[in-house]
Amino acid sequence: MRIQVLYSGGQDSSLAAVLLEPFFEVELVTCSFGSPAWKHAQKAAGAIGFPFRTVKLGPEVMDGCIGLILKHGYPRYGINYVHMKALEAAAADSEYIADGTRRDDHSPVLSMPEIKSLEMRTGAQYIRPLAGYGRHAIDALVKKHFEIVEGAAIEKSDYESEIRSSIMEKYGKETVSRLFPLEHPQSRVMRRLQK
Amino acid sequence: MRIQVLYSGGQDSSLAAVLLEPFFEVELVTCSFGSPAWKHAQKAAGAIGFPFRTVKLGPEVMDGCIGLILKHGYPRYGINYVHMKALEAAAADSEYIADGTRRDDHSPVLSMPEIKSLEMRTGAQYIRPLAGYGRHAIDALVKKHFEIVEGAAIEKSDYESEIRSSIMEKYGKETVSRLFPLEHPQSRVMRRLQK
Repeated sequence: MRIQVLYSGGQDSSLAAVLLEPFFEVELVTCSFGSPAWKHAQKAAGAIGFPFRTVKLGPEVMDGCIGLILKHGYPRYGINYVHMKALEAAAADSEYIADGTRRDDHSPVLSMPEIKSLEMRTGAQYIRPLAGYGRHAIDALVKKHFEIVEGAAIEKSDYESEIRSSIMEKYGKETVSRLFPLEHPQSRVMRRLQK
Repeated sequence: MRIQVLYSGGQDSSLAAVLLEPFFEVELVTCSFGSPAWKHAQKAAGAIGFPFRTVKLGPEVMDGCIGLILKHGYPRYGINYVHMKALEAAAADSEYIADGTRRDDHSPVLSMPEIKSLEMRTGAQYIRPLAGYGRHAIDALVKKHFEIVEGAAIEKSDYESEIRSSIMEKYGKETVSRLFPLEHPQSRVMRRLQK
């Protein structure tokens, strides 16, 4: 059973891949709008020992995303939209798709009707290995399985960096600061501790 | 990392145990109000190769459960109440507790505030390995890993059989039929197909 796991190089999508590994043939997939940001994910995928590929998302997805972010004044719905498009792209090539979204995540997160719609439209089964795990359990498993680097300025291949760059280009720095006021702590996986 | 998995002998709690096995030391736990219904779970636990124990729930838990079922006129809140008490009992002996509840389950299922409260009160982390899996993905994994028997009259060690017996004793057959109108299809695991 092959599964495509949406992958950023961060601890959550890395842990999702490790939890699936005994039961599926895992392939990591990073979506890209054309910038080389996916290379961080490629490096992390190599470090933890999974096959890796990229999927290109078209400029109309970025336009739709930025439209939603400007409309709402915060990133949540735009990021959810990109995540849905990324899952659809991964589903084109696989019966099973997955990501590293957690029980306590707010974004990206699909609602139950969105999940049902995704599965109906694509025919793929969408699996969230971390959906039943809280923060402390995830921290303990991450610590056991990975060496990570953490910090606000860690480069990884999530959607946010490409979205910010694109808004910067079109609307300038102040719009970026207004729409993304918080620097979330980031993580990137450097090494796998046990296999 | 030891984990106590609430276990009925059915396919869902068996699959939950298998998904956790590569990452935790799994022990299966079946709650009992005193009837020998737990023996079905013990047999299934032996068949799939996990250590097994029982935990006794007091008559006040059964009374509370039946009170809720009579008050609402259907089993959902009573079964949720027993499930919460069962998780609390399992948490007395472990840092991690788990069950076989699925993404699409309606009962037993704890709300997010109930989960947070459970984790705060007990200090244990509650993990739902199947929370991110839909029906088709679970069916595929169950088929790959277990030989099961299915049917309306399969005996397993879920709460419902003991609750029904207890209501039968106190209120008679017609009350049982009114409160539990549907015979849900049941499954019990007979054998593990790969390890």
